[in-house]
Amino acid sequence: MHRSALAGFIIDCQVDDLRSAADFWAAALGRKLRPSAAEEDAGYVPLETREDGLHIEVQRVAHASRLHLDLITDDVEAEVQRLENLGARRVQQVRDWWILQAPTGHRFCVVPLRKEGRFPNPPTVWP
Amino acid sequence: MHRSALAGFIIDCQVDDLRSAADFWAAALGRKLRPSAAEEDAGYVPLETREDGLHIEVQRVAHASRLHLDLITDDVEAEVQRLENLGARRVQQVRDWWILQAPTGHRFCVVPLRKEGRFPNPPTVWP
Repeated sequence: MHRSALAGFIIDCQVDDLRSAADFWAAALGRKLRPSAAEEDAGYVPLETREDGLHIEVQRVAHASRLHLDLITDDVEAEVQRLENLGARRVQQVRDWWILQAPTGHRFCVVPLRKEGRFPNPPTVWP
Repeated sequence: MHRSALAGFIIDCQVDDLRSAADFWAAALGRKLRPSAAEEDAGYVPLETREDGLHIEVQRVAHASRLHLDLITDDVEAEVQRLENLGARRVQQVRDWWILQAPTGHRFCVVPLRKEGRFPNPPTVWP
């Protein structure tokens, strides 16, 4: 038995100026930036979480701009296997999360619930 | 004064088999399909709305697969002008909504709140 939920999405931006990109999306979506120097150095800026519970980040990337979804789970390996059974395939493990590719061609991530972390919304329980 | 909120996102799929694509995303995200024959004929299948309030649809498209965000507003023209002032540009009007392009290259839509419709989450009020 494990659980998973939509964590939110990452706005991948092929830009030089991460802060301008984050400023646009913060204003467009009506959410404040939650910048930290360390995070910005690492190439991403989170936006504040609002009533929908979504974790949204603006990230600087080298590939073409796109959006990608993040699923959050209390068991990454079980969740990745569940998604493989649905037709997704593993692309790359990055530290403690996985990048997968959906049968529709979209890339998305499966990230672990942090210790003492909470799901952003009630998760689905998978038998 | 007008209001806007994140409505949700559309999973644009460059596929022949829309139902298979929708089945994958419904199972991946733990949300039931809300198919209707009319909608499926029109090329999209909505997923059930969960606690996050998001409106998520799986759509068959001719271009490469991607995700796009939808903003919902009680004044499309005012919202589009607000976003233009932030650096977005108009791409195309489709019936009563607009496709815009963000300065980061992402395309997204501004859709009208339907008569007697409700925002999925508390909207931002723009002066």
